[in-house]
Amino acid sequence: MTVDLKAYSVRTDLALEARELVQPDAHIPIPGVFEDVKEEAGIKVTRIHVQNEEGARAIGRLQGRYLTLEVPSLRRKDSKLQDRVATKFAQLFADYLKEVGVQENHKVLIVGLGNWNVTPDALGPMVVENVLVTRHYFELMPDQVSPGYRQVSAVAPGVLGITGIESSEIVQGIVEKSKPDVIIAIDALASKSLERVNTTIQVADIGIHPGSGIGNKRKGLTKELLGIPCIAIGVPTVCYASTIVNNAIEMMKSHFAQETDQTRDILGMLDDISEDERLALVKEVLQPLGHDLIVTPKEVDEFIEDMGNIIASGLNAALHEAVDNSNVAAYTH
Amino acid sequence: MTVDLKAYSVRTDLALEARELVQPDAHIPIPGVFEDVKEEAGIKVTRIHVQNEEGARAIGRLQGRYLTLEVPSLRRKDSKLQDRVATKFAQLFADYLKEVGVQENHKVLIVGLGNWNVTPDALGPMVVENVLVTRHYFELMPDQVSPGYRQVSAVAPGVLGITGIESSEIVQGIVEKSKPDVIIAIDALASKSLERVNTTIQVADIGIHPGSGIGNKRKGLTKELLGIPCIAIGVPTVCYASTIVNNAIEMMKSHFAQETDQTRDILGMLDDISEDERLALVKEVLQPLGHDLIVTPKEVDEFIEDMGNIIASGLNAALHEAVDNSNVAAYTH
Amino acid sequence: MTVDLKAYSVRTDLALEARELVQPDAHIPIPGVFEDVKEEAGIKVTRIHVQNEEGARAIGRLQGRYLTLEVPSLRRKDSKLQDRVATKFAQLFADYLKEVGVQENHKVLIVGLGNWNVTPDALGPMVVENVLVTRHYFELMPDQVSPGYRQVSAVAPGVLGITGIESSEIVQGIVEKSKPDVIIAIDALASKSLERVNTTIQVADIGIHPGSGIGNKRKGLTKELLGIPCIAIGVPTVCYASTIVNNAIEMMKSHFAQETDQTRDILGMLDDISEDERLALVKEVLQPLGHDLIVTPKEVDEFIEDMGNIIASGLNAALHEAVDNSNVAAYTH
Amino acid sequence: MTVDLKAYSVRTDLALEARELVQPDAHIPIPGVFEDVKEEAGIKVTRIHVQNEEGARAIGRLQGRYLTLEVPSLRRKDSKLQDRVATKFAQLFADYLKEVGVQENHKVLIVGLGNWNVTPDALGPMVVENVLVTRHYFELMPDQVSPGYRQVSAVAPGVLGITGIESSEIVQGIVEKSKPDVIIAIDALASKSLERVNTTIQVADIGIHPGSGIGNKRKGLTKELLGIPCIAIGVPTVCYASTIVNNAIEMMKSHFAQETDQTRDILGMLDDISEDERLALVKEVLQPLGHDLIVTPKEVDEFIEDMGNIIASGLNAALHEAVDNSNVAAYTH
Repeated sequence: MTVDLKAYSVRTDLALEARELVQPDAHIPIPGVFEDVKEEAGIKVTRIHVQNEEGARAIGRLQGRYLTLEVPSLRRKDSKLQDRVATKFAQLFADYLKEVGVQENHKVLIVGLGNWNVTPDALGPMVVENVLVTRHYFELMPDQVSPGYRQVSAVAPGVLGITGIESSEIVQGIVEKSKPDVIIAIDALASKSLERVNTTIQVADIGIHPGSGIGNKRKGLTKELLGIPCIAIGVPTVCYASTIVNNAIEMMKSHFAQETDQTRDILGMLDDISEDERLALVKEVLQPLGHDLIVTPKEVDEFIEDMGNIIASGLNAALHEAVDNSNVAAYTH
Repeated sequence: MTVDLKAYSVRTDLALEARELVQPDAHIPIPGVFEDVKEEAGIKVTRIHVQNEEGARAIGRLQGRYLTLEVPSLRRKDSKLQDRVATKFAQLFADYLKEVGVQENHKVLIVGLGNWNVTPDALGPMVVENVLVTRHYFELMPDQVSPGYRQVSAVAPGVLGITGIESSEIVQGIVEKSKPDVIIAIDALASKSLERVNTTIQVADIGIHPGSGIGNKRKGLTKELLGIPCIAIGVPTVCYASTIVNNAIEMMKSHFAQETDQTRDILGMLDDISEDERLALVKEVLQPLGHDLIVTPKEVDEFIEDMGNIIASGLNAALHEAVDNSNVAAYTH
Repeated sequence: MTVDLKAYSVRTDLALEARELVQPDAHIPIPGVFEDVKEEAGIKVTRIHVQNEEGARAIGRLQGRYLTLEVPSLRRKDSKLQDRVATKFAQLFADYLKEVGVQENHKVLIVGLGNWNVTPDALGPMVVENVLVTRHYFELMPDQVSPGYRQVSAVAPGVLGITGIESSEIVQGIVEKSKPDVIIAIDALASKSLERVNTTIQVADIGIHPGSGIGNKRKGLTKELLGIPCIAIGVPTVCYASTIVNNAIEMMKSHFAQETDQTRDILGMLDDISEDERLALVKEVLQPLGHDLIVTPKEVDEFIEDMGNIIASGLNAALHEAVDNSNVAAYTH
Repeated sequence: MTVDLKAYSVRTDLALEARELVQPDAHIPIPGVFEDVKEEAGIKVTRIHVQNEEGARAIGRLQGRYLTLEVPSLRRKDSKLQDRVATKFAQLFADYLKEVGVQENHKVLIVGLGNWNVTPDALGPMVVENVLVTRHYFELMPDQVSPGYRQVSAVAPGVLGITGIESSEIVQGIVEKSKPDVIIAIDALASKSLERVNTTIQVADIGIHPGSGIGNKRKGLTKELLGIPCIAIGVPTVCYASTIVNNAIEMMKSHFAQETDQTRDILGMLDDISEDERLALVKEVLQPLGHDLIVTPKEVDEFIEDMGNIIASGLNAALHEAVDNSNVAAYTH
């Protein structure tokens, strides 16, 4: 039995946001969903473990382990913070790999989903360009590879509109030829809240699913399809205009609720209906007029480059023992 | 006496939107404001002439002639439509130049405001890169310049954060050295409505004013400052999140007003208050949480490139008689 | 039996140059090598058919059909000439496809070899980005595809240093999944003469061979490897410094030979030895000092973009009957 | 009296190369020319002081202080070496500023000459984008600027073909408005030897002179013209094909001279004539055939980016006491 994600109309690719939608109060546990939140020096780390079908149904997310880093101040260009986030991400990701059973000698294929030419969708290809690949050394001169490195390869399969081929088919073909043990796929996501855009990294061992991310994926990258596990690293880089509006109304509701118990007077029916119903209403109004565009912050070029460096340097340190993970940023350019 | 634009809190750089805010019904004339709207083959052309102080106060815009092209379907990548828009813009702009007194032998300096490295703010520099400049030929070998060309030069002065110098000071210095008769300044603007982003071109003979456009301008490009007239070509490329929300609530109001006379029930107090009050409310909620970001559609790279080509080829045809303006696009790359 | 290309030390990927090396006089036929040269309005078209083993051995090129366009004036930025070259290339390539047995319903996979981030090696990826792909329409809604289009897909597999996987392995995997009938591979080449760089297009039905092109390919794209024919489109974008020097000495030799019969006095031993020996000598001197760099003209950015547009628009017109091939440039951006 | 640089036909913008042309043996002093060479950890630092007219005439360079860093191994991508070079350059440049009389409170205008869109000519604009500018803080909130910073501004004036205005006129206008005390101009140069391309940085207090650098400058940036001193930082990024050939013949001559005293036999007349005569000969042969192109190594994108970072981070540390110059690279992106 698979959970029908379509039923959840608020467009988010983040488990964190799905969880908040179901139960805004983080202290009330949801059966089948384990949650752990830590904050340290401006980096908030949330672990959500969807343990069974009951939990999956409850929050509308597949069973699996979701690790999320939130760093609101990433918005302010601060290269020291970026180094710190890259280092933290490297440590957390190294632990995560162990937790989900990826061993030190496992061969990794990094897949950078997305489109070079559309900046908010270019995160995946940008990571591919900056990670340290080693597979060719292992193939060509296995005796000369220093200890502390594992076999890593990386591809950016492009998007359907540019290639005419599903990216999942391209990856399948490459997996069959190059025989990795595990895939790490990087994807740009949609968030329901603008302030999570480019400040959040989600890691999940559920692969990439049809319809997720920015492009129109009709097939995914999953263990069922590929025969090997796929860990997804997703970063929200866009929002739908309708979710910005819906989210703002929600914020207005909370705002006025703190000041008055007459929010019904202020927001009318918008106060009564559920978030999903309200979103449907907003979409109903915006879409026919062509207003439900997908948007990204105007500083997108810089955000994507910074985030691409954080993830690439984090991956380099997490995947290769020989890369010093106390100062991971030195290994990318 | 100057009009205090700050009093108008809805953030728009478009006269069209300022006028709509004051009097949504286009058929009711505003004293001191002449307006003419024509639509042809998907291109809507609006001329607003703010004729005197009364009109300026009424719509919160400076006296002057505002020419606006709106082409909603520019969003759909259609190279034939783009050629058609470039050609139309060239013809309208050539007429506009005559109307505001720019003569055929006047020397033109094109100023591309904005920042190369921030895509939604890169329109100005992109136009500079694509226009046909001729001033150096007139300077170096005046006898050999073919008839039908005028003296055109072009600069991209950069932004304060990159140069440390106000762009208006840089332009002043260049004007004093190169002695043009008129400036045409290209600037990326903020719109109050997402659907006007990258589908609208505004021409105005009022120059560039402090605080307008995307960057933080503290000084402008005006006749007072420069001693020569400055025609501004502005294209909205961004929106504030708060104006998206406010605009959406307005649209919901109109939407429900068509179906019921109980919009008060649906939207509560949001229905009662003025657009300005409502925007203030939205900002009050969003800003402290860092949600009032400036956003741009995710396809921004392509939009800016297309719009840069339309404007550059339009300018080439409007400024040089020798450039055939029945097919203007052939002259840029 | 295969011809050992290594024996031919002058580094060129062009059959035209290989032929010139063997027999500079174009009027003296080489057994097993058919040659036909036409020049029209600044475009020189050479057809070389290496018909058998004898011919292959003679000029050190594999058996097959080589079509070469040379347009020296492509260097001067002239957009009308570019359109004319794209149109001519489209017509010649359409004929070539018939000649080598590619039928109208054959499904084509375009492979853009090379590296986005190294401009002289970015031609392949740039063509991929600009060609019209249709395979996904045939897969998703076959009934709605207009007549006059064929199934075309396109990939840029990246280079070994970025992916860690041979591009030939990646292509093999994609071929097995997407099942095209024929491959058209675009590759940047080395030329022995600087003036052919970015002014020449070579088409050959021999595939891509190890060591050809700019990157270090260890495996090729050949019918033996892929099971389907591979047509290579190559454009010289670089030269070795040593071949520039060697070529210049050759030119000096010809130059002085026209003026005197004492070239021996002027050029000493350089006049006596064969071109291959002289190249070996030049390399012997330059290489230890790190001077035998691969170079490209300084205008490489513009050249590669222009050439990418010519090839992409030529392919669009040659592959799809519905694309009007009297003005092919309109279909790319 | 000015020295006629045109008389020196070997095309180089480097004093180092001009000196070598006149007297290849570094141990034989040239009257009026002081020279000091130090090498440390792969970085060769040459100081040439052209002290008077006699020296200027002797080596065909203007009177002034030339500081040159040569780092042949910059070619091999090595980020630690790059950091080391940036740090060394910062220290040397800080000392150089003192030596030529630039004081700690002097206001600096950095001028990045060249063209964004032509990679080998993009060094100047790239440095401008990466330096720390502070002038606007001093102008807007002088009380709040931390100690240890000086007033720095930066502009990229563009090239004549894009702007239609001489870059020197643009800079003059900006100088008059912004009133700096000294200019530091960054320019891409031509070298006579390919191995110096992108491995060499020259600093000189002679300003920028007509005809120097890559673009066609007709006017320069000099104290005479601007009223303030101009320090030029030049990096060779291109070579003429003819100088590559000429240089190679020179290398062959040296090579054979070590093995035999019969170089006359090997190189004929090429052995007898002077380097200038030989270059004239090479040009005579190559130019009419369009072979005397300006070339750059194929890895130009990466070289220019690396060099831009080295210079920008070096300038930041040398100009602002507050920037730690033991690890200068951390301050650019």
